Amino acid sequence: MAEPLKVGLAGLGTVGSAVVQLLERGRDKLIARCGRPIEIVALSARSRTKKRNIDLKKFRWVADPVALARDPSIDVLVEVIGGAGDPAKRAVETALASGKPVVTANKALLARHGQKLAIMAERRQVALNFEASVGGGIPIVKTLREGLSGDSFTRIYGILNGTCNYILSRMEQDRLAFEDCLRDAQRLGYAEADPSFDVEGHDTAQKLSILASLAFGTKVDPHAIYVEGISSITLADLDAADQLGYRVKLLGVAVKTEEGIEQRVHPTMVPKDSAIAQVMGVTNAVTVDANGLAPITLIGPGAGGMATASAVVSDLADIARGVRTAPFGRPAARMTAIRKAPMQHHEGGYYIRLLARDRPGTAATIARRLAQQNISLESIVQRHDIEPHGAARSGRSGEPVPVIMVTYATNEDAVRKALVAVRRDRVISGRPQVIRIEKN
Amino acid sequence: MAEPLKVGLAGLGTVGSAVVQLLERGRDKLIARCGRPIEIVALSARSRTKKRNIDLKKFRWVADPVALARDPSIDVLVEVIGGAGDPAKRAVETALASGKPVVTANKALLARHGQKLAIMAERRQVALNFEASVGGGIPIVKTLREGLSGDSFTRIYGILNGTCNYILSRMEQDRLAFEDCLRDAQRLGYAEADPSFDVEGHDTAQKLSILASLAFGTKVDPHAIYVEGISSITLADLDAADQLGYRVKLLGVAVKTEEGIEQRVHPTMVPKDSAIAQVMGVTNAVTVDANGLAPITLIGPGAGGMATASAVVSDLADIARGVRTAPFGRPAARMTAIRKAPMQHHEGGYYIRLLARDRPGTAATIARRLAQQNISLESIVQRHDIEPHGAARSGRSGEPVPVIMVTYATNEDAVRKALVAVRRDRVISGRPQVIRIEKN
Repeated sequence: MAEPLKVGLAGLGTVGSAVVQLLERGRDKLIARCGRPIEIVALSARSRTKKRNIDLKKFRWVADPVALARDPSIDVLVEVIGGAGDPAKRAVETALASGKPVVTANKALLARHGQKLAIMAERRQVALNFEASVGGGIPIVKTLREGLSGDSFTRIYGILNGTCNYILSRMEQDRLAFEDCLRDAQRLGYAEADPSFDVEGHDTAQKLSILASLAFGTKVDPHAIYVEGISSITLADLDAADQLGYRVKLLGVAVKTEEGIEQRVHPTMVPKDSAIAQVMGVTNAVTVDANGLAPITLIGPGAGGMATASAVVSDLADIARGVRTAPFGRPAARMTAIRKAPMQHHEGGYYIRLLARDRPGTAATIARRLAQQNISLESIVQRHDIEPHGAARSGRSGEPVPVIMVTYATNEDAVRKALVAVRRDRVISGRPQVIRIEKN
Repeated sequence: MAEPLKVGLAGLGTVGSAVVQLLERGRDKLIARCGRPIEIVALSARSRTKKRNIDLKKFRWVADPVALARDPSIDVLVEVIGGAGDPAKRAVETALASGKPVVTANKALLARHGQKLAIMAERRQVALNFEASVGGGIPIVKTLREGLSGDSFTRIYGILNGTCNYILSRMEQDRLAFEDCLRDAQRLGYAEADPSFDVEGHDTAQKLSILASLAFGTKVDPHAIYVEGISSITLADLDAADQLGYRVKLLGVAVKTEEGIEQRVHPTMVPKDSAIAQVMGVTNAVTVDANGLAPITLIGPGAGGMATASAVVSDLADIARGVRTAPFGRPAARMTAIRKAPMQHHEGGYYIRLLARDRPGTAATIARRLAQQNISLESIVQRHDIEPHGAARSGRSGEPVPVIMVTYATNEDAVRKALVAVRRDRVISGRPQVIRIEKN
């Protein structure tokens, strides 16, 4: 049997510990698959004494992850520390500079420094694998990097954040408000104490930036993405979506348009019978559209120690087998700057929910403002019995009345202008709710 | 730029023609991805004069595919002739024996000779890639072969035949009988003039045998599979499934049990809210269960020229990049014989539909026969208004009454014995319908 692949593991949180367990449990299987064992020889983590479910005595301890990265006794560095800064960044750079392949689960690092790190890896002809950085156990990075090679991608979109999907699923299924579901998610460990990175869409944006680069060959750039979170979504929106044949999901979407690549993260209405609409709870899903092909959808566990460790181990197996492809599927030095299609030019259908003042002329005013922007309505419902929190109402005159409109394809700019005008007309109370519709 | 990868293409049907088009259309993209062009240099097909949408003059013509396979001017053979016998078999063997990698879409050939061909490829250290043989454009072969490497698979199942899924979807959505949908499928080119290979489950079985080998490291053996088709499924079954919270799909299922690997193809009731239940029309889907992981599902176009060509071109791209893994993800010589778990021992829930004679004691007789086999019922419905063809009935005494039962987990042997006894008791008319239930 060939020499084992000697791994230095930096980071021993949930993912790191699961990698240790999975490599032990899968040892024989990996030997059969790779022709050689994959063995952890040294570890590094912030605390050596923290209670963990693994026996640390079997491994050499290297206090500094950067020292681990250049340690001549390891063949490959696994970085599961996290964060775009040091020590993760320096550890990965040091390993690549020493000619060692790297496996990382670090979406923040890749979103910020992906191209630069890929160029380093290619120069040294070593692998930089990051299946675990997007979609947990779903093999979406490999699929975009090595599968579907002849295809010309037109759109990639998906549910990339389990926390948000858990919250939206619970709201719908148990008829709870956003805040209650968020609290439950925190209690169950699905959401951080400070949930804003997840619920405001930034986690999804980082992941989308990586997928967009793989799909379109553009530089990784999370700042090119329009981002909107789910905290404004109410039960009234979910109910209206249901009646209209949709379900609300937080999607990351990257589309090739005539103007460039449009990248956006926002709550989205998707047709109830689409594959992506069925994805509930912490599960993730990604759909890829290519020229002349029916869409391909991958669904699976988006987070969790074992799912993420499964992706890390697959990446290690490729290195053990001697398989190496360019980190982003093509030479990183030639990745193009994103020609950003501005959000104002986004075209599609829109769901709009307003609270209209119940007095003569309101409907006419709203209709005129939409018409001025050439927005046509597919449907309009004005009812006293639909309310932000789903409670039945009396319909007493004078109180604001919910109005729900669905537009035919229009553009972001027109919708925003029309709603500014409607607000200025003082015929509605509060802020209008706007949710974009994504057709499959 | 490196030398082009020179391709010999054997077979110019729908898939072969689409490969020619896709390689032309994707030329620049493939150069960017692989660092070299992929060029067809020679073609072989049964007829040179048949009208096709491609310009044959650009390529050298080699009448005999076997001669093409050994032609020193080609680097790789693409075999899209089809069939388990010659000339496909001899062409593939000749290419491998000459040390040339092979890309094939030929499920029949792999199901019959997969292990032998893989051993040949490994001996010569060349690739044998067959992404296109299962699931069309879905990257399921690569996912099982190279992704998910650390995982211990427990079950793999899916919708692997677009014809059957089209027929079942049409029956349900348009309330048509099996025969009417089959005729439509034939008219639309989704079904062959002789549809039995598809509708009786044999196509699914060939594909399942390949997936099971990739997942479990066992020898490819379609004869180890229990096979049942969809021709006995009626609208009454689909209606009952709907009321019970299920949808009927033709699934190929391979499960690891204590006795070995259970492999079966049959109409199956799947929970309506599962990802696989949403897959309608000619689309395919595969779900993979691994130890300690939430399921991973891949959904996409299962057939059609472009989808299949997309898989062929991805396989070619791997060869152009110099990526090679063992055809079945581990050394073929060490693939184990399947320890076949007999169908009689299959455990699960069952849906049973009978036409009971409407006379005193019938219900008691059926109940007794089930009890004798220790079968417990989750539900039983006996109604005059449910009929094989969905027509309302008068409920006149003396006419047989449909009875629909759903069992708790039991085994195949018990169900078969109970139903033999019930038939012998002469309390039912016709054959009982039995559909297995697969939980997610």
